[in-house]
This record gives sequence, C-alpha cells and structure tokens, in this order.
Amino acid sequence: MTFKVDFKVRDYECDLQGIVNNSVYFNYLEHARHEFLAFKNIDFAALAEQKINLVVIRSEMNYRDSLKPGDEFYVEVETEKVSKLKFAFHQKVIRKHDKKLMLDAIVTGTSVNDRGRPFLHQEIEQLFS
Amino acid sequence: MTFKVDFKVRDYECDLQGIVNNSVYFNYLEHARHEFLAFKNIDFAALAEQKINLVVIRSEMNYRDSLKPGDEFYVEVETEKVSKLKFAFHQKVIRKHDKKLMLDAIVTGTSVNDRGRPFLHQEIEQLFS
Amino acid sequence: MTFKVDFKVRDYECDLQGIVNNSVYFNYLEHARHEFLAFKNIDFAALAEQKINLVVIRSEMNYRDSLKPGDEFYVEVETEKVSKLKFAFHQKVIRKHDKKLMLDAIVTGTSVNDRGRPFLHQEIEQLFS
Amino acid sequence: MTFKVDFKVRDYECDLQGIVNNSVYFNYLEHARHEFLAFKNIDFAALAEQKINLVVIRSEMNYRDSLKPGDEFYVEVETEKVSKLKFAFHQKVIRKHDKKLMLDAIVTGTSVNDRGRPFLHQEIEQLFS
Repeated sequence: MTFKVDFKVRDYECDLQGIVNNSVYFNYLEHARHEFLAFKNIDFAALAEQKINLVVIRSEMNYRDSLKPGDEFYVEVETEKVSKLKFAFHQKVIRKHDKKLMLDAIVTGTSVNDRGRPFLHQEIEQLFS
Repeated sequence: MTFKVDFKVRDYECDLQGIVNNSVYFNYLEHARHEFLAFKNIDFAALAEQKINLVVIRSEMNYRDSLKPGDEFYVEVETEKVSKLKFAFHQKVIRKHDKKLMLDAIVTGTSVNDRGRPFLHQEIEQLFS
Repeated sequence: MTFKVDFKVRDYECDLQGIVNNSVYFNYLEHARHEFLAFKNIDFAALAEQKINLVVIRSEMNYRDSLKPGDEFYVEVETEKVSKLKFAFHQKVIRKHDKKLMLDAIVTGTSVNDRGRPFLHQEIEQLFS
Repeated sequence: MTFKVDFKVRDYECDLQGIVNNSVYFNYLEHARHEFLAFKNIDFAALAEQKINLVVIRSEMNYRDSLKPGDEFYVEVETEKVSKLKFAFHQKVIRKHDKKLMLDAIVTGTSVNDRGRPFLHQEIEQLFS
C-alpha cells in the first residue's frame, strides 16, 4: 500500500499569482518524506541531532497543474534503492476531490556524517532493501 | 555576459540541520529569474495582474553542497528556447568566496492566459529569440 | 465554543535552533484565522480577488515556550469588535499532549478597499457584532 | 548612528493579496537583528551550536502600510536593556524612495541555556550595557 499524507492548502502558501508557490511543493514533499520516515521509526530531527544528515542530492519535479487556496490534497511516497549509497523517493501530489495529478517528482537522497562523508545509516539501509 | 544576482544566506532560511533548507533554493532561483526578467523590462507581478502567468512546468535541481549561515553567493541565469511555447532557465548557485558550485538547475516554463491556456506573451517570446 | 484548528509541526518549519521559527507562528495564526473565516462563510481569497483586503494593523505575541519537531498542537481563535472599523482576534497556540500554552496573541485587523481606504465589508461586520 | 540593513522585496514573499505577507516582516526583522549581532561580533548560529539560544519572548508590531513587489526598503535596529535578563530591539521598516514608515516593532528577547533556563551570555550583556 502506498504511503500518503493529507494536506490542505493554506492561504499563506499562495503567491501573487493566487496559486501555491512552486517552492512550497518542496515543503509538502519534504514533510511527506519525513512522515514516511517517522512511520518507519526513523526520526529525521533526532538523526540531525546526532549529525547524521539525510540530504537531497537531486530533485526532478513536473508541475502538472496548480493547487489553489483551500484545495485538499495528499502526497504519495514510494521508495527505490538506486545504488549502495543512494535512495530515491517517487512522490505524487494528488488533488483530493477529483484525484487529479498536480505534480510528480523523483527526489534522490543520500546520508552523510558530520564530516559530510557519505554514510548510510543502518536503519535507513533497511528501509530501502 | 551571464546575468547574476547577489545573495547572502539569512539564518531563518536554515533548518534544523543548520544548513539552508532545500526548498529555499527554489526561492533563490525564482528571485534571480524575476530579477532577470525585470532587467529585460518584463514585470512578473504586473503580468500576473493582467492574468498572464509565467509558470514552471518542470525543474531539475542538482544539490552539490550546502549553503550555511552567513554564506555569500550569487545565482546565475541563462536562457534557452526549448520549443514554440517552452523556455528554459539554466541556473547555478555559486558560493562567492571560493566560486564553488553549490547547485545547478534547469527550470522549464511556459506562459498561460487566464483560462490556463498556453500563451506566449510577445515580450517573453522576444526574450528567448 | 472556542473555534480551533489542529496542526502538527513540520520539520521545515524549524530553524537552526531546532525549534519552530518565530515567524512561522504568524503563519499558524493566519491559517487559523482564515479557517475561522471560512467556517463563517467568509472566503479570504475570494475577497482578495474582489480587491477587498482584510489586513492586519497590529500584532502582539507572547512566546511562552517553543514548539519542536513532531509536536501536535491547536490554535484557538476568539473575536472581539474593537471599534467601528477594527476587529481583534485573540489567539492561543496550545500543545496537545499537555495542554501547555505555547503562545498567546492579539491580532488586530481592518478591511480596506482597492484604494486602501478602510471599508468594513458587511459580512465581516456581522461576524463581529 | 542607527544600524540598518538594506532589502528588496522578492516576489515569492508576496501573497495572494499581491503584497508582502505579514509573517515575512518577521523574517526581515530577524535577519536585521542577526546582522546587527554579527556587526557586534556575536554569531547567532555559532551560539545555537553551543546550545545558547537567543529567544524572542514578546513581539509587538504595527503594520502601517504594505510593501509591494520590487519595493526597496531598509530595516533599522536599536537596542534597549529592559531588565537584568531581558533586552529589546526597536525596529522600523522604512521604504527607501520616500522614507515612509511601513512597520514599527518592539521585539523583546532573552537568552537561555540548553536546559531552557535564562542565561545572559556575557557578550550579549555587554551589547546592551
């Protein structure tokens, strides 16, 4: 079953075009990923405290349509192991009332230690295997 | 000559990892594009008032290294005409003191009218030809 | 009965101190006010489209304690008519698990027309009487 | 001489009313305060690393007029020692071209250690004496 997180557009997320600003989708996707990690018992903030940082190395986002004030939607999260040290999140933003795909994205990440070296934490490794 | 805009990291742009949050690069890139448009006498906000909306349809971003509190940097903007109705911005985020490439991106956009139909405003067409 | 809106802290709302950034409480309060207005059948975005703008003229916020990653909380909204043209929102941010008051605020607003003149829309007048 | 920091409105800071969103003034004020601290050789981020956190306990903001896309402005910072453990920043947002006061604010803060106890770092004490 695909993991998903429910959202509702907040007016302050909209810009002078009256639609959700492009950068905000990034926030939505990040929050959904962190909720997914929490669901898998991985605490992003606690890892950061330990100087183990999950970092994004690449993102590809296709903007299909624009979310508007008041829209309800959900973000789907699926994972893929890309290589020994890289993992990808396939994410979709779907408007609730008509199931319209608003955005789809591939976000590729890795894990680094406090010296910025790649370091795949065991818990994270298990997540993607 | 490549168009560029100077920036300095603001502390509120940093997240609990102590580095600039990924979504904020999107803000930086957008601001640099709008400054580029302004330089070419295209006023993004005024167009939005007329219901002519420049919209992003795809972004690809490669995160090379992380900006930290206090870092000074600049964002470069170069343009490419992709097709009759699509244009691309090639953008780089470069740290000032050592000219290190922190992020590079391709942001593809189009222009739509108030009914959401593709519509390439003449001024914008000239910009990319 | 006091109107309230449920929230959960999102990691991107936290800054380099590892706590929710002060400015973000402003976002929370605004969203709760707009949800309150929506509940009363007043559509903030639709009013803005008609160039009737509800604007904040003063805010007073007391920060009692800091929200942290993952915290669940709710924002309470109560209204007060201050004068013919001014209305106030009394708002509280309360952490869910222990009902601790994290922030209390008074946000005073008015309504202006497209020339920036005070203009209290009838629907809003009714809301506060 | 009053300390000030120059800014220019970025389009993404504007909301669906086409003006700078109220929460963003908080960002402006914070950035100006941190620049002021940096000017006085106090590094906010470095202190946070050492778990010495400067925190806001109260803010009062009077919104006089709205900044719009492209507006240039500056933020003034003046300090006041309020009590043994509290210090205040008096801040003004002033539009550049006509010196119009857009917002004035009093932001009161204190300093806490890693157990959340009031603790006024010596460097900060000197700043306000």
